[in-house]
Amino acid sequence: MAPPPTSEVDCLIVGAGPAGLMAATWMSRCGIKTRIVDKRGTKVFNGQADGLQCRTLEILDSFDFAHRAWRESNHMLEICLWNPNDQGVIRRSDRIPDTIPGISRYQQVVLHQGRIERFFLDSIKEHSNIEVERGVLPERLEFDASKAEDEDAYPITVRLRHLTDEEATPHQDLSSTATNPALNGSAPQNGMFRSNLAADDTEDLIRKARAEAGSTEIVKAKYMIGCDGAHSWTRRQIGFTMEGEQTDYIWGVLDIIPITNFPDIRMRCAIHSANSGSIMVIPRENKLVRLYIQITTTEKDGNPVERAKIGPQMILKSAQKIMHPYQLTYEYCDWWTAYQIGQRVGSNFSLNERVFLAGDAVHTHSPKAGQGMNVSMQDTFNLGWKIASVLNKICTRSILKTYQSERRRVAQDLIAFDHRWSRLCSGRPAKDVMDEEGISMKEFKSAFEKGNMFASGIAVDYGASVVVAKAGDLAEQGDGTAVESAGGDHKNRVVGKQDLAGGIQIGMRMPSFQVLNQADARPWQFQELLKSNGRWRVVVFAGDLRDAEQWARLTSLGEALAQPSTLLSRCNSRAGPNSVIEVLTIHSAPRTAIALLHLPDIFHPFSEREGWDYWKVFVDDLSYHEGHGHAYQNYGVDPLKGCLVVVRPDQYVSWIGELEDVGEMERFFGRFMRASA
Amino acid sequence: MAPPPTSEVDCLIVGAGPAGLMAATWMSRCGIKTRIVDKRGTKVFNGQADGLQCRTLEILDSFDFAHRAWRESNHMLEICLWNPNDQGVIRRSDRIPDTIPGISRYQQVVLHQGRIERFFLDSIKEHSNIEVERGVLPERLEFDASKAEDEDAYPITVRLRHLTDEEATPHQDLSSTATNPALNGSAPQNGMFRSNLAADDTEDLIRKARAEAGSTEIVKAKYMIGCDGAHSWTRRQIGFTMEGEQTDYIWGVLDIIPITNFPDIRMRCAIHSANSGSIMVIPRENKLVRLYIQITTTEKDGNPVERAKIGPQMILKSAQKIMHPYQLTYEYCDWWTAYQIGQRVGSNFSLNERVFLAGDAVHTHSPKAGQGMNVSMQDTFNLGWKIASVLNKICTRSILKTYQSERRRVAQDLIAFDHRWSRLCSGRPAKDVMDEEGISMKEFKSAFEKGNMFASGIAVDYGASVVVAKAGDLAEQGDGTAVESAGGDHKNRVVGKQDLAGGIQIGMRMPSFQVLNQADARPWQFQELLKSNGRWRVVVFAGDLRDAEQWARLTSLGEALAQPSTLLSRCNSRAGPNSVIEVLTIHSAPRTAIALLHLPDIFHPFSEREGWDYWKVFVDDLSYHEGHGHAYQNYGVDPLKGCLVVVRPDQYVSWIGELEDVGEMERFFGRFMRASA
Repeated sequence: MAPPPTSEVDCLIVGAGPAGLMAATWMSRCGIKTRIVDKRGTKVFNGQADGLQCRTLEILDSFDFAHRAWRESNHMLEICLWNPNDQGVIRRSDRIPDTIPGISRYQQVVLHQGRIERFFLDSIKEHSNIEVERGVLPERLEFDASKAEDEDAYPITVRLRHLTDEEATPHQDLSSTATNPALNGSAPQNGMFRSNLAADDTEDLIRKARAEAGSTEIVKAKYMIGCDGAHSWTRRQIGFTMEGEQTDYIWGVLDIIPITNFPDIRMRCAIHSANSGSIMVIPRENKLVRLYIQITTTEKDGNPVERAKIGPQMILKSAQKIMHPYQLTYEYCDWWTAYQIGQRVGSNFSLNERVFLAGDAVHTHSPKAGQGMNVSMQDTFNLGWKIASVLNKICTRSILKTYQSERRRVAQDLIAFDHRWSRLCSGRPAKDVMDEEGISMKEFKSAFEKGNMFASGIAVDYGASVVVAKAGDLAEQGDGTAVESAGGDHKNRVVGKQDLAGGIQIGMRMPSFQVLNQADARPWQFQELLKSNGRWRVVVFAGDLRDAEQWARLTSLGEALAQPSTLLSRCNSRAGPNSVIEVLTIHSAPRTAIALLHLPDIFHPFSEREGWDYWKVFVDDLSYHEGHGHAYQNYGVDPLKGCLVVVRPDQYVSWIGELEDVGEMERFFGRFMRASA
Repeated sequence: MAPPPTSEVDCLIVGAGPAGLMAATWMSRCGIKTRIVDKRGTKVFNGQADGLQCRTLEILDSFDFAHRAWRESNHMLEICLWNPNDQGVIRRSDRIPDTIPGISRYQQVVLHQGRIERFFLDSIKEHSNIEVERGVLPERLEFDASKAEDEDAYPITVRLRHLTDEEATPHQDLSSTATNPALNGSAPQNGMFRSNLAADDTEDLIRKARAEAGSTEIVKAKYMIGCDGAHSWTRRQIGFTMEGEQTDYIWGVLDIIPITNFPDIRMRCAIHSANSGSIMVIPRENKLVRLYIQITTTEKDGNPVERAKIGPQMILKSAQKIMHPYQLTYEYCDWWTAYQIGQRVGSNFSLNERVFLAGDAVHTHSPKAGQGMNVSMQDTFNLGWKIASVLNKICTRSILKTYQSERRRVAQDLIAFDHRWSRLCSGRPAKDVMDEEGISMKEFKSAFEKGNMFASGIAVDYGASVVVAKAGDLAEQGDGTAVESAGGDHKNRVVGKQDLAGGIQIGMRMPSFQVLNQADARPWQFQELLKSNGRWRVVVFAGDLRDAEQWARLTSLGEALAQPSTLLSRCNSRAGPNSVIEVLTIHSAPRTAIALLHLPDIFHPFSEREGWDYWKVFVDDLSYHEGHGHAYQNYGVDPLKGCLVVVRPDQYVSWIGELEDVGEMERFFGRFMRASA
């Protein structure tokens, strides 16, 4: 037999779920030669996860398609808490906002995962020729550790097998569906084959495909990202493990169009019955409502519960008991599944910063808090630009270690949150203060409110590292592992001046407030200017430019930045002004008091073909139609004196300094930016 | 030779520009068997009109694609007026908002016509199998007037000729382009072949196609809409004329990426030089700026100016003189053209309410006020639902007469506006108060401000008719022709109670303010609930439902509306609740004080398959994240007692009454609704 064909690729992504697609989306924006493969022959199913955090919507907007999710999704505005009264009858005890007002320009919404994946696919296609290759299964991985630090090497060798259509189509458990038809006779989609109660089928697929001699090929890759789910094949090849435990809670999930007299069925609800368990109500798009219902515990011998027992009617009956005296039934069931809660985190997120794991491959937890898809996408949102920057020779490999320190820490925090959360959701309400086994409803409400901040995704605060210039212990702020190599790094460490911008936290995402374009008075949410295209940003809060002294400071800053010797100049020299590090200015003088072209050129560069750049200078002023953003006040920046802020390509804040601190900023960039780029 | 094939269609649309596409979009939503043909073999060109009024964006949103225009377009926020100072040097004399704050949730934007057409095409495809047939030319029209009032007849017979690709490709004037290359050597697109200075080529096309024996077919149609432009073939076949005059102003249009030190190049500007003429600056998408420049008058003998003299360099030179002492040049020119201003209105807009004319076929005027494409689209936005309602046997043919009375009046008003506007834009600034030939800059600013209201499209106020129940003289409020047939109509005339809702004007479009869904607290702009799907709406301002008396009034209203004998019940009986006349409720009590399911069923109907309808009842209350809409206050409705409002399928207000006025409302509907539908 002839040897299989061999090819090279800069980045190989395994798995085309949300985490894999997010990684591919970055590559599409940064011009990286990429392949993305998925063993499944078909895309997306009914059901599947659904909640989109505020932060996820901000991220999707940075790729220009949040509006599609925003328009199609169901918006969740209010959470209603239902508990037994003194007679043991459930009643609404509280209403709380689903998203904490003011933390983001988006609120949490719910939309079928298949639509999110569609938006990613459309966006990738619009910006590149990357295509998801379905029915393609990796079956061997070799890694040459000796080449790990050789930038131009391909240390990863993967054998890919191309499946036939039949092989690649997931096997649905028809027997289970058959015994549990929807009430109206049509079979709802059974999601059990993707549940964590179902066995992994990857090895089966490989065996079958080999027997049938499907074609294979060899791919050599510089980088590889395993986004291949809870049963991750990639993780097993590189020998990393999942750490944590399985709880004995089992939950059923039912997506139905409800027929009910329960008054809050279109609100997100947490209902605790006195003795029949609890239920979470998640209203969805297309009139659907998702019910998460506790159905039983693991069987006594610790084996998974018998699958054939679980079905939509069983789940419905549990729901009816919990929601008594309200009635609940349905004619249309869209999907159902069941799962057992497990909270586990991967031991390592990367092998030599060449093979990375992301998403369910390194963290699993309960779906009820609506975190899974979000945290998975945010893993590769964190990772994608870093790999692309290294491949494009913009940054050194030193930044890659921050993926694990940043994202494994988030996974650890998530698991801790989910642990508390699941106990609260699964437990029985306390009968009185002496009932120690029961869950206090006060505790529940307070946890819900705190959980809301965590669940928004806005609270993520990356620890100090080469790309986050803040004070404190690096290991403690991260996942416990070393972020920076030893050597002389510590004495070169740069720490930004956090107190210059109280509303902008180093390590957290840049908040968004409205500013106006100086040239045309159009209002923009500042985040809209921070698109995900791989660029670093220096945000110049120029202060009040009517003030002569401040004007002089800005002029000096302009001169300092324009020096050909600065990293800013040298990084941008290859592809033109603002191509690698973009300078965005926000001043606080009245718009009509300032003329754009009077500012130093570096803030609005000239091009022979297109004239001046009118899209870099903004002002914190009143708009004609959308009020005043009060950006300086909200960012906590002195409106006279301003400051400098460095923002990473993923909108997280790296450094803050004064207008005179260009040298310090250069030192920050100097630790990982490659001037020759 | 065999006779050409013959087929039948409910609606034949000739011309696939914005007016034709708007008509087809209505048909796609109302399930009408439709064909739309265009003689051109290719879609859209560079350049072309561009401004989208607030009202047009509201309309596009009613078809669910305003967001696409909003995202891609350039938003215009401010108009800067530039005039000579005492030394004759131009300087900025005023800034005014481009859109009057508060009149709409949209502001005027600018986007290439080709993109608008793309959005229409995508939307039509999404909702129907209607496809634009390009390279198809009507060449004979027969109309059997004796069948005009026979509803099921096909009084229209059209012979269509299918052109070859070559025939259907517009002939560009290469010689003119050759003598006027762009400064950088690449040829910009020359738009002269579509200018009104160019000759019509329809007859040429027909002659050529006949000579080459292209295939033909016969189409029999119930209705036909001629959207075939200023040289309308349809108009000539039915013998209608254009009335009005040609002015002797000639303007050049240049789309460039400007290289300039003029400070307001990204603002909409009107610049009057002392002695070199005037210029309008319209900033566009993709860094382009459009310049409208007065270049010369008609030649002395009254013939059109010699075309070969007009080109981008000539236009640029004129601009440079006007904008002196500022510099202006360009490397990239996207498109250019020239036109002569003519203001004319069609004598009739329909033949027996069977063959209709719309858009440029019945009104031509200056493009500078950005009205052309908007008014054209709004013509067929007015007409489309009327034809569809008659075809679907929802309404009687009586409503069709209102197309002419409503839209010809708008065209008359537009021409009057354009006349004043063009004189102001084309004229020379007055040197002093004694200079009577010059234009007073005070007058100019005042006209600009007044023009802004007209130009928004929001000011349109349809006259009294069978579908607009207001007081006053029908002919006077319309285009001067009779709207209603004689007979006993006058004594049956219904007049709504305008004073119950000061912010809702009978005859004008329903304004939009934020309300919350009672069931899930989600905020909506009320207009978002008035989608263009052919439905009439009864908006129930239910008042304060905490008040026992008001609750009783609402209960009585619910009983009255639910009677099987009402037109509302009978119209909806075929396709289910809310299918023909939809009931939307807005109450003014606090959201949490009211339970949706307590309201009478008619306000939230029950379905066996989907349970209660959670999307019909709204509340005027504070939202969690987007403030308070103050809808009752803004609509001018008594927050205790409320009122009833009938809104047409195109969002224009028909009638206002009290909750007890169901009988009067029935009488209103009874004049044109067909209960048997």
